[in-house]
Amino acid sequence: MSVNQTKEKPLFIGIDGGGSKCRATIYSSEDGVIGTGVAGRANPLHGLSQTFESIQMSTELALKDAGMSLSDSRALVAGLGLAGVNVPRLYQDIVSWDHPFADMFVTTDLHTACIGAHRGGEGAVIITGTGSCGYANVDDKHLCLGGHGFALGDKGSGAWLGLKAAEQALLHLDGFAEKTILTECILNHFKVHDAMGIVENLAGQTSSVYAKLARTVLECANEQDHVAKEIVKEGAAYISELARKLFEVNPPRFSMIGGLAEPLAPWLDKDVIAKLSPTLAPPELGATYFARQKFRIK
Amino acid sequence: MSVNQTKEKPLFIGIDGGGSKCRATIYSSEDGVIGTGVAGRANPLHGLSQTFESIQMSTELALKDAGMSLSDSRALVAGLGLAGVNVPRLYQDIVSWDHPFADMFVTTDLHTACIGAHRGGEGAVIITGTGSCGYANVDDKHLCLGGHGFALGDKGSGAWLGLKAAEQALLHLDGFAEKTILTECILNHFKVHDAMGIVENLAGQTSSVYAKLARTVLECANEQDHVAKEIVKEGAAYISELARKLFEVNPPRFSMIGGLAEPLAPWLDKDVIAKLSPTLAPPELGATYFARQKFRIK
Repeated sequence: MSVNQTKEKPLFIGIDGGGSKCRATIYSSEDGVIGTGVAGRANPLHGLSQTFESIQMSTELALKDAGMSLSDSRALVAGLGLAGVNVPRLYQDIVSWDHPFADMFVTTDLHTACIGAHRGGEGAVIITGTGSCGYANVDDKHLCLGGHGFALGDKGSGAWLGLKAAEQALLHLDGFAEKTILTECILNHFKVHDAMGIVENLAGQTSSVYAKLARTVLECANEQDHVAKEIVKEGAAYISELARKLFEVNPPRFSMIGGLAEPLAPWLDKDVIAKLSPTLAPPELGATYFARQKFRIK
Repeated sequence: MSVNQTKEKPLFIGIDGGGSKCRATIYSSEDGVIGTGVAGRANPLHGLSQTFESIQMSTELALKDAGMSLSDSRALVAGLGLAGVNVPRLYQDIVSWDHPFADMFVTTDLHTACIGAHRGGEGAVIITGTGSCGYANVDDKHLCLGGHGFALGDKGSGAWLGLKAAEQALLHLDGFAEKTILTECILNHFKVHDAMGIVENLAGQTSSVYAKLARTVLECANEQDHVAKEIVKEGAAYISELARKLFEVNPPRFSMIGGLAEPLAPWLDKDVIAKLSPTLAPPELGATYFARQKFRIK
């Protein structure tokens, strides 16, 4: 490729940073997506240096995938969607980064996910993956609900389901709570035999480690385990409530995104399921739309 | 002091490491306590290097307090009571430490707290400070219940009360939960004005930061705030249940230890309150008893 792109034909890179992965997509206005890359977690709430490393790594992989050289990053206009940058301090930390791009625009991962889900249009999304959060972008106004991160918020998320399940399994093993097949499933998940084994695998671990238990919790709930069902129902009730709060601003479209969107859907209230539309593009492509919008305004 | 202590007249140092502080006490069989020191948190579950630093620092302060030089640590027989060392990996990490003592014996902070509370005798304790846990030492058998650390377990602890309160305040601010005066109290605690301010002060923080909210939760509960009362009642019900499980092994004495022991006591069930005895010595002195017992056996 030629790095002397003009303002009229710029190259964009969209980056979606999350609790478990960082995805980058290089987009050309002429050719569409020309390269993609995936690196590790990029959540500023859980470490800035790891965030920058993952952004850099996913960028390098996308450049390589596009047949470009690493120095070509200087020609890219970047759009970053990152968790936690609604916290002013973290936003400042990110925009102060000595980044490798021609220009860099930063917004929340919710915003870029929403732009992507509705292919540049306005609408609302709920993200339920490692974390959970609701977001609506209507009439140029932004509504962000829930979130707040693990273990403080993120109700109904994968990490929340995992934490609640581990709590109940430990209470069961200690004789404080009712019997649940979750206990056996969690012991099997970690290949351990007692409470100590569970603690050793979870103590001080990140949200993504807890989120790996989410599928197990949903399976136990689907097998009618009472404790697992109560956890999933409480999480799903919160997500349904979250959706209804987003509907109050009349979003033209509504989608659910993230690894739990599909398995959690049957547990949501019917009025919420009725309004679900498929996502049209992934968050990292949403981040390129965001970069394109910001670049034009600038 | 003379560092050529004989096996018959050794000097002991008891160290109690916890989620917020590390306390060291130097004990002489002839003169009793001759020096004390307090340093920062020493919880191996949340970082080994900080644990070693805090042990070192509290030891140095205790030596100074006793009018001894730093190199005199080589003459001390140390007893360490540390959280998390029931996890085999962490126990190994601690005993493999290139420690500055003549000899070092390691056990859980629960064990040394229990030995201290009953001045060397057997009995049971519940610790409710930053974390929560139950422990009984009867007929040379050890029973350890609960704990598991923040945010996985430690129900009824200061950090747990703080986390539950922050969760409810954020749900209230987002419009998902009932009104609670906790919200205003937590906003005031951090001198912030919205959910984002609370998140900014708590996201990624340690259990001790959450535990600082516990007094606020108890005050709101005492002022009959419904949400705060429900949180405190749930925590206290768990602590009462924990106590009854300890009573099953017929401990000759029962005490409660930690910053929340006193404010939480009125919320416990009457049968538990009836069995409460005062603690006879602090955990760091319990750690010297432990060192003395182990040293004699060795």
